Amino acid sequence: MDRAWESRKAWLAALSAPVPEGVNNPLEVAAFETETYLDAARTGRSVRFVPYPAMKESYEICRQGNDFQIKGGQPGVLYGAYALIRALQAGEEIPVGVQKPYYPLRMLNCWDNMDGTIERGYAGRSIWFEQGRFDYDPARIRQLGRMLASVGINVLCLNNVNVHQPAQHLTDDLLPEVERFAAILRPFGVRLMLSIDFSQPLQQGLPTADPEDERVAAWWRQRAKEVWRAVPDLAGFLVKADSEHRPGPNAYGRTHAQGANMLARAVKPFGGVLVWRAFVYNCMQDWRDTKTDRPRAAYDLYRPMDGQFDDNVILQIKYGPFDFQVREPVSPLLYAMPKTRLAIEFQLAQEYTGHQIDLYAMPPMWREIMDQTGKQRVEAIAAVSNLGRDDNWTGHPFAALNLFAFGLFAWNPDADPERVIRLWCQNTYDLPAEEREKLVSVLLRSRAIYEKYTAPLGLCWMVRPDGHYGPSPYGYEFQAWGTYNRADCRGVGVDRTAGGTGYADQYPPEIRDRYADSKTCPDELLLFFHRLPYDFVMRDERTLIQRIYDDHFEGAEAAEEMQEALRGLPLPPEDRQEALTRMEMQVRNAREWRDVINTFFHRFSGIDDKKGRRIYD
Amino acid sequence: MDRAWESRKAWLAALSAPVPEGVNNPLEVAAFETETYLDAARTGRSVRFVPYPAMKESYEICRQGNDFQIKGGQPGVLYGAYALIRALQAGEEIPVGVQKPYYPLRMLNCWDNMDGTIERGYAGRSIWFEQGRFDYDPARIRQLGRMLASVGINVLCLNNVNVHQPAQHLTDDLLPEVERFAAILRPFGVRLMLSIDFSQPLQQGLPTADPEDERVAAWWRQRAKEVWRAVPDLAGFLVKADSEHRPGPNAYGRTHAQGANMLARAVKPFGGVLVWRAFVYNCMQDWRDTKTDRPRAAYDLYRPMDGQFDDNVILQIKYGPFDFQVREPVSPLLYAMPKTRLAIEFQLAQEYTGHQIDLYAMPPMWREIMDQTGKQRVEAIAAVSNLGRDDNWTGHPFAALNLFAFGLFAWNPDADPERVIRLWCQNTYDLPAEEREKLVSVLLRSRAIYEKYTAPLGLCWMVRPDGHYGPSPYGYEFQAWGTYNRADCRGVGVDRTAGGTGYADQYPPEIRDRYADSKTCPDELLLFFHRLPYDFVMRDERTLIQRIYDDHFEGAEAAEEMQEALRGLPLPPEDRQEALTRMEMQVRNAREWRDVINTFFHRFSGIDDKKGRRIYD
Repeated sequence: MDRAWESRKAWLAALSAPVPEGVNNPLEVAAFETETYLDAARTGRSVRFVPYPAMKESYEICRQGNDFQIKGGQPGVLYGAYALIRALQAGEEIPVGVQKPYYPLRMLNCWDNMDGTIERGYAGRSIWFEQGRFDYDPARIRQLGRMLASVGINVLCLNNVNVHQPAQHLTDDLLPEVERFAAILRPFGVRLMLSIDFSQPLQQGLPTADPEDERVAAWWRQRAKEVWRAVPDLAGFLVKADSEHRPGPNAYGRTHAQGANMLARAVKPFGGVLVWRAFVYNCMQDWRDTKTDRPRAAYDLYRPMDGQFDDNVILQIKYGPFDFQVREPVSPLLYAMPKTRLAIEFQLAQEYTGHQIDLYAMPPMWREIMDQTGKQRVEAIAAVSNLGRDDNWTGHPFAALNLFAFGLFAWNPDADPERVIRLWCQNTYDLPAEEREKLVSVLLRSRAIYEKYTAPLGLCWMVRPDGHYGPSPYGYEFQAWGTYNRADCRGVGVDRTAGGTGYADQYPPEIRDRYADSKTCPDELLLFFHRLPYDFVMRDERTLIQRIYDDHFEGAEAAEEMQEALRGLPLPPEDRQEALTRMEMQVRNAREWRDVINTFFHRFSGIDDKKGRRIYD
Repeated sequence: MDRAWESRKAWLAALSAPVPEGVNNPLEVAAFETETYLDAARTGRSVRFVPYPAMKESYEICRQGNDFQIKGGQPGVLYGAYALIRALQAGEEIPVGVQKPYYPLRMLNCWDNMDGTIERGYAGRSIWFEQGRFDYDPARIRQLGRMLASVGINVLCLNNVNVHQPAQHLTDDLLPEVERFAAILRPFGVRLMLSIDFSQPLQQGLPTADPEDERVAAWWRQRAKEVWRAVPDLAGFLVKADSEHRPGPNAYGRTHAQGANMLARAVKPFGGVLVWRAFVYNCMQDWRDTKTDRPRAAYDLYRPMDGQFDDNVILQIKYGPFDFQVREPVSPLLYAMPKTRLAIEFQLAQEYTGHQIDLYAMPPMWREIMDQTGKQRVEAIAAVSNLGRDDNWTGHPFAALNLFAFGLFAWNPDADPERVIRLWCQNTYDLPAEEREKLVSVLLRSRAIYEKYTAPLGLCWMVRPDGHYGPSPYGYEFQAWGTYNRADCRGVGVDRTAGGTGYADQYPPEIRDRYADSKTCPDELLLFFHRLPYDFVMRDERTLIQRIYDDHFEGAEAAEEMQEALRGLPLPPEDRQEALTRMEMQVRNAREWRDVINTFFHRFSGIDDKKGRRIYD
């Protein structure tokens, strides 16, 4: 069995000894981790644990002379142990007072298929599936549990939301395997979740999957009973229904509330939640149809259902109304469901954000999103995983930052992006402060730079439809996905104000007003909300077209600056090589984006760059 | 074993009894076919065969009272038998005098992979490969042999020119299987050819595949010896080298003549030919580079090598300089290699011509091409197969026409398209004359109609890059394939005259002059050779943009007319259903093309349709 991954510990560089087989619970893991860490660091210090079950996930760290005391529940003490190690490793202050996660459900959604592929995976094949079955190294799953626990992630959804055969059998024949897997993660405070297929009863002998048919409800109750008998602490089911050709309640003329509640009632006796994804839109749109506007879809569908969902249903909403684009406004649905339990969904997998080739540190984006949304609007948080079987776990060694940071944001949505990025650097690399700050700076700027060369002023979907890497500004234009920029010789963009598709009206009035007026709309969303001529004059007196040119020249140049900065960093050799190889690809990609986007708009507008830089014909 | 294909006989509808196992040679097949046919038709007539070995592939049919005599070589007598049946079935005159094929090599290139897929296959999976091995119904291969012989095709290349594992082993371990397959086709006068991988020696232990290395030459000599020992009448090898990432002599700094001659010498002692494909270009082009022009590539590479190829090398050249587009000028290389044996390559598989969904009868296109080229410029003819495991052999029942017609054109490149189409109809369907003529008319117009809605004035590559079906006018624009239209707000097209890329200069002067002047360049090639503004006035006084709009409206309308015509035809139920289902898809496709292309050019030009027809924003 290949064990090269063992030496690649991401931000757990300081934890050299593997967690041994046979640890039974979070307290044992906590004791092992702190003891080994403090011994190795030759601190002469020790940690005393004070289990306090009622504290559950919370912990409190106190100094006791030279030593530490961690009081907490299970897995609270474990979170305390990792927080202590993280702080010591970074030379940061130990957190004072009781620490409690803001969101009780901090979920990682893995889009792993049982054939071993990962949908939108950029770090190799599945860590636990291969050729239609479970296939993993238990030591690697323990290491995974440790990574998740170290940043407080407490739910792992094992399989792709698009449930392909034989993953339907995770809830029946394969349950003993699921439990074996769950048992490995349990001492790390990580519970499993399973993606289910709404049509499962149909596939297994019932004549219908109609959620209002009592036979279907009974079938799911029985299924849930067997699932929780096998895996008593399963967190719940995750469902993608009536979306991108997945089956769902609409086939039977039922609402999503009816569909979700039927399932929620089946899992309720066992304390399970039913997570229902709100990513539903018409993926067979006719491009000629300018009335239908994909960003409207989720709000139009779900808003009328607010209040109809059972209390163990969680509606999981992507942060933007499209699909994990570099720049979207926050989904209006997040403001519109006060009587529904909501989760917000992020995507660590860099599907549209550089495939874990280009640097894209997400914390600044999450900060903006959470600031706009208000953390209290949702009560759970999920992210699509960026993990895979690559030795370094995330393809690009720096992409691990996003998993690390997601955990910290889920615990504390007020987290400061720069601090989180620095903490990751401190825990991952042993760099002199000056060098470390260079890396912090590169990572901190990386998202803004990626945005500059890929996503002009909130125009989404300029990416290649095949694979979602690299530019193709007209690639989606005549397709059925509802993703159009409608560039022509006069202008570009879709009018989403009341005079256009009306999407902006889905927001609360003060937000709507800001977006709906091209004078107050933030620059970075200007072309999301407005259709504008190329000579539209922006607040800074540049024309729209000049701003697009400037951004693309600057973005590609900034990628080269990042490359220059990285070249000088004394990283461990493997990470250095991986990072520089990918940086080389990123610089090429950035130039390609620059030239394709500039040429595209130059061809349509016929307007030259004022600064006379090279735009190809 | 599924035998539904047995009832689907394409143009051999009159031959109801299968050719039995155990027929040993063309004469026996000929006798069986004529006897069975004449018996079934209750003609009371008979055929006497006069074998005359020196006539080889030729035959002569004479009437003897009420009966017939066929004199000929082997397989000449068999070709005579099928010609007789075809004529009787059609009520046509029996051909008078000795009939001799114009091209001695009439080759079908099958792009079958051993995993069972067919590259650019639109009629199901491979008829003879599946899961990495041979897997076929011998009765179906006999029926295939009969189909090929009935139209005079005498070589079948068994495997894809892109040789994927394990197809390299067709020339070693799998030779007994190849011979078993060859033996089934031998009585039909069909010889096999194999596609080989230039790097085979490397894969099988040699340190190099350098054609000038004596070890490599010896390796191939030994390989050829074993191949021809197993299959003594193998026609030869087919090679795609240094093309689209296939290995070739360039890796060793050798020319294609050196590569081809080395292989040709290995196969020469056994009478084999070495067919070398001239489809070589830079498939990693930078779109910014306006100097490089893909259509130039083959001429630039091969022209200097004229006279350097051995006499058993055949350079196989696609009809146009791009790649089987609906409308291209004839490849200038066809005029430029007087000292080289050439084959012309067609593609029956409807890769860019409608995927065997849209109707596209090729004879009118071949007529134009052969008229321009001059049939004597080449001495062999090849076509990429459109066959597959579908019951009806070609996906669309009418697509069989292209295989039928290819055989007849290869036999007689002066064939009249309308006559060939009618002959196919007469042999395939038992329709009243009036209905049959409707079908003839639909088929005869089908290519012009497809061209109208897909390929404006010789602009190639407006097709979707993923799969090559449906419109995507900017889909190739920023890719690496060297296929650009460079549409902008001022005009469209690539200047390929002396003032531009100079491609037109590759033609003999009188052709060059006609193409290079936008006043004399044929309309249908105008945008192949010229970059023109949208308001360019054409010979018929329409503007370029108006002509594009007109063509697309008319093309989509004509597709609807074809649908109307087909609806009334009393075809056999299965064929009728298949044809109408696909026609429905074609009409949708034609509308999509109409609207996407019109919108694309409307957006760039800002010019409205003069007739006020609907162009979407």
